[in-house]
Amino acid sequence: MIKIIVDCFGGDHCPQAPVEGAVKALASFPDLYVILTGDEEILRGELQGKSYDSSRLEIVHAPQVISCNEKPTDVIRLKRNSSMMKAIMMLRDSDDIAGMVSVGSTGALVTGALVRIGRIRGVIRPAFCPLLPTVKGGIVGVCDSGANVDVTAAHLRQFAIMGSLYMENVYGIEKPRVALLNVGVEPEKGDEIRREAYSLLKDTDCVSFVGNMESRDLLAGNYDLVVCDGFSGNVLVKTTEGTAIELLKKVKKDIFSRILYKFGALFLLKMFKEEKEFFDYQNYGGSVLLGTSKVVVKGHGSSKARAIEKCIEQAYRMETSGLSSKIEEQIARYEHFEE
Amino acid sequence: MIKIIVDCFGGDHCPQAPVEGAVKALASFPDLYVILTGDEEILRGELQGKSYDSSRLEIVHAPQVISCNEKPTDVIRLKRNSSMMKAIMMLRDSDDIAGMVSVGSTGALVTGALVRIGRIRGVIRPAFCPLLPTVKGGIVGVCDSGANVDVTAAHLRQFAIMGSLYMENVYGIEKPRVALLNVGVEPEKGDEIRREAYSLLKDTDCVSFVGNMESRDLLAGNYDLVVCDGFSGNVLVKTTEGTAIELLKKVKKDIFSRILYKFGALFLLKMFKEEKEFFDYQNYGGSVLLGTSKVVVKGHGSSKARAIEKCIEQAYRMETSGLSSKIEEQIARYEHFEE
Repeated sequence: MIKIIVDCFGGDHCPQAPVEGAVKALASFPDLYVILTGDEEILRGELQGKSYDSSRLEIVHAPQVISCNEKPTDVIRLKRNSSMMKAIMMLRDSDDIAGMVSVGSTGALVTGALVRIGRIRGVIRPAFCPLLPTVKGGIVGVCDSGANVDVTAAHLRQFAIMGSLYMENVYGIEKPRVALLNVGVEPEKGDEIRREAYSLLKDTDCVSFVGNMESRDLLAGNYDLVVCDGFSGNVLVKTTEGTAIELLKKVKKDIFSRILYKFGALFLLKMFKEEKEFFDYQNYGGSVLLGTSKVVVKGHGSSKARAIEKCIEQAYRMETSGLSSKIEEQIARYEHFEE
Repeated sequence: MIKIIVDCFGGDHCPQAPVEGAVKALASFPDLYVILTGDEEILRGELQGKSYDSSRLEIVHAPQVISCNEKPTDVIRLKRNSSMMKAIMMLRDSDDIAGMVSVGSTGALVTGALVRIGRIRGVIRPAFCPLLPTVKGGIVGVCDSGANVDVTAAHLRQFAIMGSLYMENVYGIEKPRVALLNVGVEPEKGDEIRREAYSLLKDTDCVSFVGNMESRDLLAGNYDLVVCDGFSGNVLVKTTEGTAIELLKKVKKDIFSRILYKFGALFLLKMFKEEKEFFDYQNYGGSVLLGTSKVVVKGHGSSKARAIEKCIEQAYRMETSGLSSKIEEQIARYEHFEE
């Protein structure tokens, strides 16, 4: 059995979406076991009328609520009975639980994971790696997208190693093409950190480093993983999301405000819905946290059931692919650390 | 007369686009005087058959060619007779020349402007400020978009002051709403630099600071100026450009691959052309360099005549609005510097 905890509170569509996502995931993976954390009574109510294998689903009561903008350190200290902290503590304490999925506060999740769960041996800083769709129909990972606003070249190299192993082992992309996000493609571009990272990555034989990338080329489909600091990675992912949403809205409005005939309108409406789905990165799963000693997947706060199902699937695949030990093995080849 | 130099080489459509752009700008502004730099014979040939007021156009021979990827410092030292360096030196030496427009190498232009032209008194670092369209039909400035990959909070405050004065004086936006690019909207988000900049900006009374902004909200039209370091600003602008281009291409392809009827196809083609124009930031002018003691406008390397005409117009309006002295005046209120 692969045991995954699903934190059922903290998002826009909670607890309906996590509960429904968990039920769907149970149907897809016969060896998946799900533990839901949150207010037991509410969760029982949400499960009523749903059909699932009850021998593979468990509820752990965690009634405390994390309020908006609560400080991560306060959450860890004071909200031990919240759905998120309960999940984190169980993940730390139970060897047979593989990972967790949460759509709650990013700050609390990262801090909780770092402080309570810890890192894979050799990893300096865990990093987020969400996926975006490319216009060629593939996906591209972005690591880091916000866990670390300050980085060094050594961090960037580790993001490349971890992200590369993730794209290969979880998504079956052989020798993922890894690019370094920069302000130009020439090796000497950017700040000192970027130039140092460029030369480190060139010499990292387990990474297929293809050089610097300008952000305008992200969606073209020429790269499988983009490596960056968490600040610019966050800008990269959110700008893509924002531009796609605003542009589709505008194009749709412009078409329909000028359509003088009804013919074709239904077809176009359907198409715009598909385009929106295509560019909605939630459909590609959550932002996995790479480098923690147990699997942690962060879903978008606005995740619906389908997105959470995807997150559970990601956690499942990260565990079954043995990603953690592969990361430990490769990181060890480049880092010198004390036992 | 407002004298503007147009560097006629270094871009994809050179020298046709700069020459045509200059001729168009001359027709729009009766008190504009244009100096074209570049190979005189080629420029004379390009001007043949065009109608313009020859008493307001001058050619300065500068036959040297800057090759691709030439180091900025080498350009300054060795290419004094290139169209760009000639323009920079004339701008420095002639009191009656107001500014220059170039579509050549960004690195060479920034370095040349800094070393040869110098800064407005009190300005620590000049910064680029391109404009992007918003879906509400307005524009938003991004400062800095790439001149400074490393910044401090004090730099960010100056970018806010300069950008704010630019949006107000050149585009007539009263009390521009200024936001700080960050990974979240809460004041404590981001790194130390962002947190310090947040508190500096709150206390800068000549700037209408509205707080942190996440990059997904750039195009929504709620801000007039976004302040950021040159690295993430570059990511912001180029991601918007890249996403818009790729997405429009995809939506267009998807519509036309499934249209089984001809009715409406022409209308849609026309509309997609308009959308592309709308999201093409070249149509909103070049990236002006704010903080140099003379006006410097950098056009996109792929600028066509219309884009260069816009750049000349920007340079003209920056000069006639007295932007430089306004920047000096406001910067002096916040900075303590030696005479």
